[in-house]
Amino acid sequence: MTIRYPNGKPYINDDKKNTKKQSKKPLSKKKLSYSNRGMSLEEDLNQTNEYYRLHNQAIIHKKPIPIQVVNVNYPRRSAAKITEAYYRKASTTDYNGVYRGYYIDFEAKETRNKTSFPLKNFHDHQLEHMKKCVEHGGICFVIIRFSVLLRVFLLEYSDLAVLWEKQFEADGKKSIPLKTIEKLAYELDYTIAPRLPYLTVVDQIIDRMSHDYS
Amino acid sequence: MTIRYPNGKPYINDDKKNTKKQSKKPLSKKKLSYSNRGMSLEEDLNQTNEYYRLHNQAIIHKKPIPIQVVNVNYPRRSAAKITEAYYRKASTTDYNGVYRGYYIDFEAKETRNKTSFPLKNFHDHQLEHMKKCVEHGGICFVIIRFSVLLRVFLLEYSDLAVLWEKQFEADGKKSIPLKTIEKLAYELDYTIAPRLPYLTVVDQIIDRMSHDYS
Repeated sequence: MTIRYPNGKPYINDDKKNTKKQSKKPLSKKKLSYSNRGMSLEEDLNQTNEYYRLHNQAIIHKKPIPIQVVNVNYPRRSAAKITEAYYRKASTTDYNGVYRGYYIDFEAKETRNKTSFPLKNFHDHQLEHMKKCVEHGGICFVIIRFSVLLRVFLLEYSDLAVLWEKQFEADGKKSIPLKTIEKLAYELDYTIAPRLPYLTVVDQIIDRMSHDYS
Repeated sequence: MTIRYPNGKPYINDDKKNTKKQSKKPLSKKKLSYSNRGMSLEEDLNQTNEYYRLHNQAIIHKKPIPIQVVNVNYPRRSAAKITEAYYRKASTTDYNGVYRGYYIDFEAKETRNKTSFPLKNFHDHQLEHMKKCVEHGGICFVIIRFSVLLRVFLLEYSDLAVLWEKQFEADGKKSIPLKTIEKLAYELDYTIAPRLPYLTVVDQIIDRMSHDYS
């Protein structure tokens, strides 16, 4: 016989009800120890840039996402409400700013792939933009994250450009093998603050630039 | 009887048809001579920056307007439609990029006022942002236009900062008199291409910076 509450709904044993919700697998140790890292690369970089700004080390911002506004309602002048808009393709990279007198410009992307980084994460016009910025004395790179492996790398534009062009050759690879990235790029280790201290790598790039010209 | 073309469409006397389209007033001489200038300062600067990019003189872009997206419809994955969004306050200036190895950062504003430029066109955080960028070796300024007078000026951050602070003193002016601007700022003359050649002024600023340090 089904036991019922006064409202007529049947009584269901809580232990049974929750069985499905509970994971049978105990939480893996690895998952626990990386709990701080459950953020997107964008969040990591926003925190890092905020840290650099607060400590007056560099002034680097993420650019707003380009949006094409089609319709706006003005219920009150102070609170214009956009009712129709579309995402536009970015014509540049996402991050730029100034550090030690240098113009800094970079793009950040992550992949769930474990063995290589697909080049389709970048676009022609972004490569073109970085090329131009380097020609004018800027420092350009990409920060790429293997989100499953939790490994982050800084790859300079000059190296990315070579790999980018190679993909159009016969049998050209459409993605960069992790092994190549390990060889060419700088690996960034997560720290408490800033989360992704990429400026220490930029310091090395600047030092090398000064040596090139001296 | 209506005269018809071989295709059956009636013949309409062109003289009559165009009567309404023709303005009865002769175009004023002033309007004609300034006809090129019927653009907003933003359009002038976008054209100028595009010219500089095409001629590979500098890589300077306007940042997208920051928008807080609240609701998005996905009728198809390729055409996400934003159905609710709001304008956010910009935390930086509108334009930045790289020129001759220098980080360039500026804000552009216009007024219909004829005798002075209201300081309320700028915001605390923009001044703060420019201050920080200058500290890190960037070149920061504002481009201001008196739209009725059709006069455009480039005012360096260092001068703007002094005027900005003065407004908070007793009897401090909330706007910059045109006479002060004529004295402190560089006037930009419109040219065919680029429309507002502000980099010639930046050249002077760079030359002066190099002298300061030598």
